[in-house]
Amino acid sequence: MLKISSPHQPARKPRIVIVGAGFGGLSVIKGLGSVDAEITLIDRQNHHLFQPLLYQVATAALSPADIAAPIRSIVRRHRHMHVLLDSVCGIDRGRRMVRLQSGATVDYDILVIATGAQHSYFGNDHWAEFAPGIKTIDDATRVRRKILLALESAETNRQENVAERKEFLTFVIIGGGPTGVEMAGAIAELTRHATAMEFRYITPKCVRIVLIEAGSRLLASFPEDLADSARRSLEMLGVEVRLGGRVNHIDATGVIVGDDRIKAATVIWAAGVQASPAAQWLEATADKAGRVCVEPDMSVTGHPEIFVIGDTSAIARDDGRPVPGIAPAAKQQGLHVGRTIAARLAGRHEPGRFRYRDFGTLATIGRKRAVVDFGWTRLKGFSAWLLWSTAHLYFLVGFRNRFVVGMTWMWNYLTFDRGARLITGLTPGTMASPQPPVITLTPAAAPLKAVSAER
Amino acid sequence: MLKISSPHQPARKPRIVIVGAGFGGLSVIKGLGSVDAEITLIDRQNHHLFQPLLYQVATAALSPADIAAPIRSIVRRHRHMHVLLDSVCGIDRGRRMVRLQSGATVDYDILVIATGAQHSYFGNDHWAEFAPGIKTIDDATRVRRKILLALESAETNRQENVAERKEFLTFVIIGGGPTGVEMAGAIAELTRHATAMEFRYITPKCVRIVLIEAGSRLLASFPEDLADSARRSLEMLGVEVRLGGRVNHIDATGVIVGDDRIKAATVIWAAGVQASPAAQWLEATADKAGRVCVEPDMSVTGHPEIFVIGDTSAIARDDGRPVPGIAPAAKQQGLHVGRTIAARLAGRHEPGRFRYRDFGTLATIGRKRAVVDFGWTRLKGFSAWLLWSTAHLYFLVGFRNRFVVGMTWMWNYLTFDRGARLITGLTPGTMASPQPPVITLTPAAAPLKAVSAER
Repeated sequence: MLKISSPHQPARKPRIVIVGAGFGGLSVIKGLGSVDAEITLIDRQNHHLFQPLLYQVATAALSPADIAAPIRSIVRRHRHMHVLLDSVCGIDRGRRMVRLQSGATVDYDILVIATGAQHSYFGNDHWAEFAPGIKTIDDATRVRRKILLALESAETNRQENVAERKEFLTFVIIGGGPTGVEMAGAIAELTRHATAMEFRYITPKCVRIVLIEAGSRLLASFPEDLADSARRSLEMLGVEVRLGGRVNHIDATGVIVGDDRIKAATVIWAAGVQASPAAQWLEATADKAGRVCVEPDMSVTGHPEIFVIGDTSAIARDDGRPVPGIAPAAKQQGLHVGRTIAARLAGRHEPGRFRYRDFGTLATIGRKRAVVDFGWTRLKGFSAWLLWSTAHLYFLVGFRNRFVVGMTWMWNYLTFDRGARLITGLTPGTMASPQPPVITLTPAAAPLKAVSAER
Repeated sequence: MLKISSPHQPARKPRIVIVGAGFGGLSVIKGLGSVDAEITLIDRQNHHLFQPLLYQVATAALSPADIAAPIRSIVRRHRHMHVLLDSVCGIDRGRRMVRLQSGATVDYDILVIATGAQHSYFGNDHWAEFAPGIKTIDDATRVRRKILLALESAETNRQENVAERKEFLTFVIIGGGPTGVEMAGAIAELTRHATAMEFRYITPKCVRIVLIEAGSRLLASFPEDLADSARRSLEMLGVEVRLGGRVNHIDATGVIVGDDRIKAATVIWAAGVQASPAAQWLEATADKAGRVCVEPDMSVTGHPEIFVIGDTSAIARDDGRPVPGIAPAAKQQGLHVGRTIAARLAGRHEPGRFRYRDFGTLATIGRKRAVVDFGWTRLKGFSAWLLWSTAHLYFLVGFRNRFVVGMTWMWNYLTFDRGARLITGLTPGTMASPQPPVITLTPAAAPLKAVSAER
């Protein structure tokens, strides 16, 4: 099937195409080992992103380059690998060809789709404008700009309009999963500790942070006692946790939860994801989140030459529960598929069924608390936070990033400082839209005593 | 003049307004010391930027946050200082009032303008679109994206159109001052060393870098032998130095120098600057670069309560030569003006005339060469580079940045790695404009031998 040989044409190497250079895609390369094939890796970004730490970029604790590494740099030792910066817009299964947005096509003998997931607004796509989520570096810097500008606007707007000022200082996070919990904790720290010293008219007391979860508890995938511990930790940081809250409306001035209107300049979406459109490209069966339902070896039904892994695929564990959409699962699947392909090309016995090994799940709350569930044991508080930090540092791609992030964390921890607190992309018009920070005072007009009293 | 007292109104503190939080503006604060006044610092960005290293962000050696520090963080110990994120759009000298873009106004008793300079395209403002300069973080990430995308496009476009590929691999820098020299050296290293390992179809030999200078030599402000040394160092890095080259035209496909057309996807402007429009706000006399011609104490003629410093002002040294538009000059002027104001408010004798102390000028060429002119002695080569590195690290604001930059430089130096090589702001449409990287091949269609031969 894979070797094409004719008197007129020398034997050519099998062509493996991997779409997506996330945790899944890169692990496929690891699993392939030193296979004698021509490998093409396609991604629409030029960098691999360590998504679990993206919320730290959004809250100005880390710089984008700290958690992203150029793909070419990661695979540079694979001399016969091609890297393409492009987006997939379709797949021709008959001609075994991937269509790219640039108009190019890439032929494959074996295809691996590892294109991840994107936000889902449950049919309310117009909410995306008012409640951005965090999936890419640009998402994160956009959210960072939004948070920091809200603080600036509140500071400038301190006297004239109390209601408006309150709106600038209200931060709503929708979704009580690990991302929402981590964002809420990080925003609480950013606004309460790091800026308490630097603003003259806003104090930690003025800030309101609301975490909204539709279910009856936070961290649905964690045991109940850890979820409770996370909720208490958040509340100690001053976060208002609203369980069973149904978001009915989002616009530029805030959200409506149930019948309650919360006016807020900053709303962040951490509620739902849906798979990338791989199921449509492949005309394959998908679950309701758009994930391709794959065979036990992660291949597409009827197409043993196409594999779908990570957040784009749906597969069950041995006990019937679904494999979670987290980085370790994508990495295990990538490794498995890489080894399957290598075995197939070498004519060896294929490993067959994918089995998920659950090494535990972690979520962090602020600068010294976390919850860790290993299955056989559970940790919370500071020891869990230490473990979380070590684990994330360990898995960061590239020694340099690991080192820089480690030093930055230590610095942030010791000083409460947030070095990456930059507002970028500020054009002259940015301040005026979508919500103009109405500045109507002359600072010197305020008697200094009154100002001091307000702090 | 400054204390307003009446039976109905308590004495109020003098109001000092500083516009611009660059080297000049921050030094004013240092010079003011513990003066009992209400100080307002206005900047259109939320961060102070270490501009001398901005070219390293543009060439992916450093991250934006490495060379920028939040203004609020820098001045947080000054409890009575206000920081405003806003742009100045006018000054009412009669009512002593600064008008801001947001519509707000700020009253002053003493005003310091330190708003720096911007690019000047010598009347060809439409060139800005094709030949961006580097003055802000956003400028730098835009140039970084342009350079990295050109390399990606050349790699993908490797076979079909040799002329187009050549265009992607041609980098033109206009202006042979320190910025142009540093950019040319950094691009040479980025393209030649750091990416030689990571691209499969482009080699250092394919890359062409042209530095165009209208004058008869590089680094006009340096002694001739150092300028010669810089030129030789650049040529050793493979940079084509064109002296006496007059740029007549720039568009999306390249530049016309004299009668010669150089096709290039990446053109960078480092040729000219003009002062910010302070002279217009103040209706003051300006030189041809728009700089306000100030009195010997840096105040505006007829307005002892308004000072203009740094790149926005024009003042001569004792020997009649102009004070250069560099960071050390702005810092000295800021300190001088701060002390002048402090003395005036305290009723002490004012320091009077500003005297520039020339501590030398430096420019770096790539990863191990620089030129340094101390006046009394000159250095070039590796020792100059070591001195340049130390000096820049020393002057970086904030311990954390200094430390991170130091570690990053050491890492870059030891490994040739460029960790910050991120293409951000890539929207699906970005690849298609303004110059579509026409991708027309299927990589696998290329016989592997031919590919290997091309490397």
